[in-house]
Amino acid sequence: MKAYLDCIPCFLRQALEAARMATDDEDTHLRVLNSVAGVIPKLPLNVTPPEIAQQVYRIVADITGNRDPCYEAKQQANQLALSLYPHFKDAIASSDDPLLVACKLAIAGNSIDLAPQSNYGDPVSIAESALVSPLGIDDYEEFKRSIESSSRILYLGDNAGEIVFDRMLIEELQRIKDFEIHYVVREKPIINDATLDDAISTGMDKVAKIVPNGSDAPATILSQCSPQMLQLYHSADIIIAKGQGNYESLNDEAKNIFFLLRVKCPIIARLLSTKVGDAVLKRQHI
Amino acid sequence: MKAYLDCIPCFLRQALEAARMATDDEDTHLRVLNSVAGVIPKLPLNVTPPEIAQQVYRIVADITGNRDPCYEAKQQANQLALSLYPHFKDAIASSDDPLLVACKLAIAGNSIDLAPQSNYGDPVSIAESALVSPLGIDDYEEFKRSIESSSRILYLGDNAGEIVFDRMLIEELQRIKDFEIHYVVREKPIINDATLDDAISTGMDKVAKIVPNGSDAPATILSQCSPQMLQLYHSADIIIAKGQGNYESLNDEAKNIFFLLRVKCPIIARLLSTKVGDAVLKRQHI
Repeated sequence: MKAYLDCIPCFLRQALEAARMATDDEDTHLRVLNSVAGVIPKLPLNVTPPEIAQQVYRIVADITGNRDPCYEAKQQANQLALSLYPHFKDAIASSDDPLLVACKLAIAGNSIDLAPQSNYGDPVSIAESALVSPLGIDDYEEFKRSIESSSRILYLGDNAGEIVFDRMLIEELQRIKDFEIHYVVREKPIINDATLDDAISTGMDKVAKIVPNGSDAPATILSQCSPQMLQLYHSADIIIAKGQGNYESLNDEAKNIFFLLRVKCPIIARLLSTKVGDAVLKRQHI
Repeated sequence: MKAYLDCIPCFLRQALEAARMATDDEDTHLRVLNSVAGVIPKLPLNVTPPEIAQQVYRIVADITGNRDPCYEAKQQANQLALSLYPHFKDAIASSDDPLLVACKLAIAGNSIDLAPQSNYGDPVSIAESALVSPLGIDDYEEFKRSIESSSRILYLGDNAGEIVFDRMLIEELQRIKDFEIHYVVREKPIINDATLDDAISTGMDKVAKIVPNGSDAPATILSQCSPQMLQLYHSADIIIAKGQGNYESLNDEAKNIFFLLRVKCPIIARLLSTKVGDAVLKRQHI
């Protein structure tokens, strides 16, 4: 999807919040704001929102000198999610439909996102609530059928912390049959998105093959991805794409993609005919 | 109060929303966004938020050629509020404490505001809910005492539509005793703020003397106000100031001011130790 004009003020807000995570110096925050405001008139609007976000976060990194401002937040999110792992594994195991519950929890895990707002709420209560709530878009039956006829799964991750919930879903998939599963992470730090370090520290590397995607965009921008990632993308039977960024960058692709995400902004809510906060399991229409 | 860095992205969003109200032409919306982004690095940050808003809305008016983009919205808000008038007058009359209920309704009327968001929710349900809800900041007893010892009231209005709820409060005050009440409106259209036209079309001119303040800021910026307005300001026994804009421009003044507003942004919520959406009746600490 192309960026909307509504994305522009939102990027300015995100830049300010990222600058605040990168440094406490208020003069630097102002310099970041002014620099991002200065590039707004030069922004191409025929690209996807995460392509613009990538440029904005590079400005924040250049000015603050901090290339991983969410490092601490990512470690904390991973530790929190790991501490919740036994409890939610039990919830999956004791359910009538463990795959559905694992999907719902993976979507709930997508709430751990520092881009839409610096305080993303309480993932524990979001996950507990997800267990008993219906999906806002529910293509689960199609997902289940597609999984049954697949052998190669490409799983596009999104955020740190969330990755632990992805691991639960992947473990549930592995329990169904012996899939070949590749889990894709961002090549370099961007916001609180998961990278190779997060995959290793949360044990994801024990249950899937980890693939850094070659890009520092908060999304899957195919033109920036590594040959290995693209080869896996084109040969996968099914692609599980987590989060809004992956949706924004891949929703025009003619592939067998299932988007698992929480809706985090009014633009995406309008596009999907959902409400902000809804849990979405949506098949790509190809 | 001085503007916060957080106000800057919010002004960009407001500019876009105002541009959309002014014209359907998307190229013009983009030109507005780019122009406002272009002035951000030049903005003085040692002024109040409404002083910046005033500059931003002037850019919108200059580029769109529409100096009153909320004209239709204001007429509709006035008509809606007038249609509610009999019902809520009854609610005031039948209450144990009519002045308190009139205050709560005047605060609820402050929800009719197009600056924080283009869709301000349902004022009817907000007003109904206000009747049975406590105030987030409750200086009502002080307000009542101050009213009892006053004779000259300066009432600083905020928005169209809301002005009908202000009229109910002024009528309730007039029922207590024969006050001299001046109701202040903006000199020229700005967002959906009430002007002389709104005061006349809602019958406010029948219950108070109307004073255009000499300024097109969405607030009371004393340095821009007319000599008449300033004379009334300095001679008033009590000042009732409606809305966030008047709070932001007057909260450092050493005057007997009571601020009646709904909290509409996280910055003001933090400053006042309230939540967004709270109803506030706050005495100025002098």
